[in-house]
Amino acid sequence: MLSGPVAVWKRINSVPMPSRRAPSNKNSIRILPLGGLGEIGKNMLVLETEDDMVVIDAGVLFPEVDMPGIEVVIPNFDYIVERKDKFRGLLITHGHEDHIGAVPHLLKRIQVPVYAPPMAVEIMRLKLREHKLLDQTDMTSVKPGSSLRLGKLEVEWFPVCHSIPDACGIAIKTPLGVVIHSGDFKFDQDPIIGYPTDYGRLAAICGKGVFLLLSDSTYAEEEGFSGSDRTVAESLFRLVQEAEGRVFIVSFASQIARVQIAADAARAAGRKLALMGRSMQNNVKIARELKHLDLPEGLVISAGEAASLPDRKVAYMTTGSQGEPSSALVRMSRNEHPELDIREGDTVILSSNIIPGNETAVFESIDDLVRLGAKVITNRHQHTHVSGHARREEMRILFNIARPQYFVPVHGEYRMLRAHADLAADSGVHPENVFLIENGDQLELSANSGKIVDKLPAGHIFVHGYGVWDESGNVVVERKALARDGIVTIALARDDKTGRVVGKPRIISTGFVHTEDAPRLFKDTLEDLETKLEDARRKAIKWEELEELVRNTVARFLSKRTRRKPLIYTVSIEI
Amino acid sequence: MLSGPVAVWKRINSVPMPSRRAPSNKNSIRILPLGGLGEIGKNMLVLETEDDMVVIDAGVLFPEVDMPGIEVVIPNFDYIVERKDKFRGLLITHGHEDHIGAVPHLLKRIQVPVYAPPMAVEIMRLKLREHKLLDQTDMTSVKPGSSLRLGKLEVEWFPVCHSIPDACGIAIKTPLGVVIHSGDFKFDQDPIIGYPTDYGRLAAICGKGVFLLLSDSTYAEEEGFSGSDRTVAESLFRLVQEAEGRVFIVSFASQIARVQIAADAARAAGRKLALMGRSMQNNVKIARELKHLDLPEGLVISAGEAASLPDRKVAYMTTGSQGEPSSALVRMSRNEHPELDIREGDTVILSSNIIPGNETAVFESIDDLVRLGAKVITNRHQHTHVSGHARREEMRILFNIARPQYFVPVHGEYRMLRAHADLAADSGVHPENVFLIENGDQLELSANSGKIVDKLPAGHIFVHGYGVWDESGNVVVERKALARDGIVTIALARDDKTGRVVGKPRIISTGFVHTEDAPRLFKDTLEDLETKLEDARRKAIKWEELEELVRNTVARFLSKRTRRKPLIYTVSIEI
Repeated sequence: MLSGPVAVWKRINSVPMPSRRAPSNKNSIRILPLGGLGEIGKNMLVLETEDDMVVIDAGVLFPEVDMPGIEVVIPNFDYIVERKDKFRGLLITHGHEDHIGAVPHLLKRIQVPVYAPPMAVEIMRLKLREHKLLDQTDMTSVKPGSSLRLGKLEVEWFPVCHSIPDACGIAIKTPLGVVIHSGDFKFDQDPIIGYPTDYGRLAAICGKGVFLLLSDSTYAEEEGFSGSDRTVAESLFRLVQEAEGRVFIVSFASQIARVQIAADAARAAGRKLALMGRSMQNNVKIARELKHLDLPEGLVISAGEAASLPDRKVAYMTTGSQGEPSSALVRMSRNEHPELDIREGDTVILSSNIIPGNETAVFESIDDLVRLGAKVITNRHQHTHVSGHARREEMRILFNIARPQYFVPVHGEYRMLRAHADLAADSGVHPENVFLIENGDQLELSANSGKIVDKLPAGHIFVHGYGVWDESGNVVVERKALARDGIVTIALARDDKTGRVVGKPRIISTGFVHTEDAPRLFKDTLEDLETKLEDARRKAIKWEELEELVRNTVARFLSKRTRRKPLIYTVSIEI
Repeated sequence: MLSGPVAVWKRINSVPMPSRRAPSNKNSIRILPLGGLGEIGKNMLVLETEDDMVVIDAGVLFPEVDMPGIEVVIPNFDYIVERKDKFRGLLITHGHEDHIGAVPHLLKRIQVPVYAPPMAVEIMRLKLREHKLLDQTDMTSVKPGSSLRLGKLEVEWFPVCHSIPDACGIAIKTPLGVVIHSGDFKFDQDPIIGYPTDYGRLAAICGKGVFLLLSDSTYAEEEGFSGSDRTVAESLFRLVQEAEGRVFIVSFASQIARVQIAADAARAAGRKLALMGRSMQNNVKIARELKHLDLPEGLVISAGEAASLPDRKVAYMTTGSQGEPSSALVRMSRNEHPELDIREGDTVILSSNIIPGNETAVFESIDDLVRLGAKVITNRHQHTHVSGHARREEMRILFNIARPQYFVPVHGEYRMLRAHADLAADSGVHPENVFLIENGDQLELSANSGKIVDKLPAGHIFVHGYGVWDESGNVVVERKALARDGIVTIALARDDKTGRVVGKPRIISTGFVHTEDAPRLFKDTLEDLETKLEDARRKAIKWEELEELVRNTVARFLSKRTRRKPLIYTVSIEI
């Protein structure tokens, strides 16, 4: 069963990486992922013909534990910016952060028209206003199901089911055939918001043959169907009904369908619903204006109003499902919320899964909530969540509808991409036409064959405050070293005429030793150092030599005394 | 159903914390957990009567992501050290790191006899030799099933099933009755190593009534049985048989039963077995010497010998199931192993679960292995692992055998302790006699009632190199701040006679800005600072005032320019 795809990986792995080449020729298109392949997040994909270039999505990656201090991680835009003359538009599939979060960062570097479904447009509007970019941005709201001509390309947004309203896949008619990008999708036959997939329309788009399918791989390791939101509704209705005191339903701010379920469940149990957190309130406001939410007058109340009602008459919807420190839930769990305290009798329902990497934070907040007396219900023991991403059986349905000539798995970590690629080959895509590529691999596809023609820089770009930098900036590497061992700085003074060391060197440290141990340790360190400075006090020594002497002497002494290797810096003042 | 236990929590939560009191009176015993309650790891529990004190286990906690640079976390030994006159012995239940890892650290502070089952003794021997403590340590090997008299206490080690040989629970006869500490246990009816629980002996120990039961809560949230190692054996036999190339079975070094299963599976498939990693080899050597492992001559070969055999004739057993950077598996996944490269056709079987917090590291190594061409099988999709800890149905069995007067859940995070406490009340322990306590809570139990009489310091003690410190040392807090925003140091020189600032201040930074941006930014920062230093150059200013001026000026300037708040330090040299 593996022989087909395995042969493909072998072939791919052995493709030589030539140096940059001339632009693509008339009879091919190029695909270049700048994010979302080999990672979950910061989705961004370039599609290029001889005349036109479009970009699908511009998302952020939330920083991982090994990226201390970083606010967000965005794609590398250099390739796009260099080709702005043929850049026809940024095409957005839906309004989740990992698909739109980098839009302001891109628009700061290059002005380009943005096309997106209405819900995504409204969420981006808030974002662009914050970044003071709204006025200068050319943004078009595209109704799901409608098409646009961009250069020589015809682009259609087709509706798909996902966990946010107005989610779309994108179909692009190119000179070589139709390219289908699934967006984030699932086949929910009973969605709470929006409609089931329009199989007829999808089949019609695919009807004349699909040249290339790009499709969401997040759950490619999981068999079966992801399940319908309806099943979560059934379960939440029961749990809210059974709760004896207040109920807190925890989800993402962008999980609009979950808000509808929570509201319906609250109403059925005779409760009012209060929304906690600014992002939750903003998104609900947008969804109500766009008629995606059906909330009867008087059902949604403020936290202040909720406080005056009996416990059994209130439900809260809040963010914090990933243990985010600034979320309403985590602040409540730490007794730091200005309005609400968790107490005996409360029921907290995590209507979410844990995104890998967030376990420690999530379990810590659960422990804190339990300590305060709450009963906490998660998707480990009750059916409180279904994913918005297709599983393998749904992926097979899409392969069978699309029957693409070429297939490229997108959106997922490497093992998921590979599982999806295997599945494509098993589902009838010719193994030679399945391309397991990663960010920066530029894939050229012609009528008869495809190959990787270039490997472009597509690493992480880190954003912290006004700072935007790639790995070469060393900042993240330095931070990790600082955190591991702390830092010791030795300050010296030198006579600017004679170049000789004058005065007494000083040492300061951070994150290195116990505050009580430091004075003694550094007194000894300086005494040891002084014996090595005799020469430098008598005659001029080059700064580089002096610095090396000081650093080595101190490093050796501290390593002997503490068995550790802090970062050691020196600084000299010329007097 | 919750009304009973809830009442208990209420009562517990409202117990006032009196100041330190006189030693316990004749008619009570005291229990003081110094680790393992509210966390998984660094298990340590003090049991004290008027005349005698014993301590059960002394484990380490592996540092969490928010403890950068820390090697291990150990309990606070102050209470024990202060009472060394009545300290009769350290009683070890089994040889896992979270139960014995802190033994050398304790023995550095206080010489005390250690009693442990044979496997734990041998593992500790290696450890104590490394710490140069072996010769001075009084360590006694206790055969499971046998008893000792320590002071007025009679202590029996009774065998339990767990994932390491010679695992025991401990029964202590006190003047008030029998105290049972379960150790880490499960009821496996078909263990691969050792024997099923001796229900007869356990019932006999419990026969005259159990005063207090302390029991492992790790899986108190999970219904049913943890399952037998036999089922894992069945599954691994099949997976090893089906593999076409080399097979790597990944587990903990201390999972001796898993080594037996891997060896049996390899032999059945006509393969030899090579053990990777020093800790794996050490533990297997000990287990063979103690006759816990049954490995026929010639089955286990070296990695060098394995390399000369055909792929289908070899299986490897290796560490690295938690993504540990120094493990054989992770080094192979990064192509950094001196002897072995992962390649197309290899099958890697993770015979383990992921300990929460390690997901990012584990998934990263899986992605790397898949990228190298390996097929990776985990317990998410195949039955490759069962836990060594009892689930709820097994906990109910223990309650029904022991029928304790008092119950204290141990070993687990807070939500697990609470679930276990709830279960105890549901299983017939009087809710008033169930005590949900945390590390440092000193519980006093008399014939008729129990209460928390003191709250003692039992926080984390961090070990890094020769450094050992508690939270007050600020080191961990500083490291986290360093990692988040980096550090900026300003060095100044002052005339030691006039106190005036002389020379040009210097700035250095780490982890703050891109190396390319730093020179320009700090040039501007110093220009801005110079305008504020005019006064300080003309007349003496107190160092505290000058420092505040410099720090505030630089902080304000950098915040404006970068929108960030690095740690800012100043240092002055007297000339």
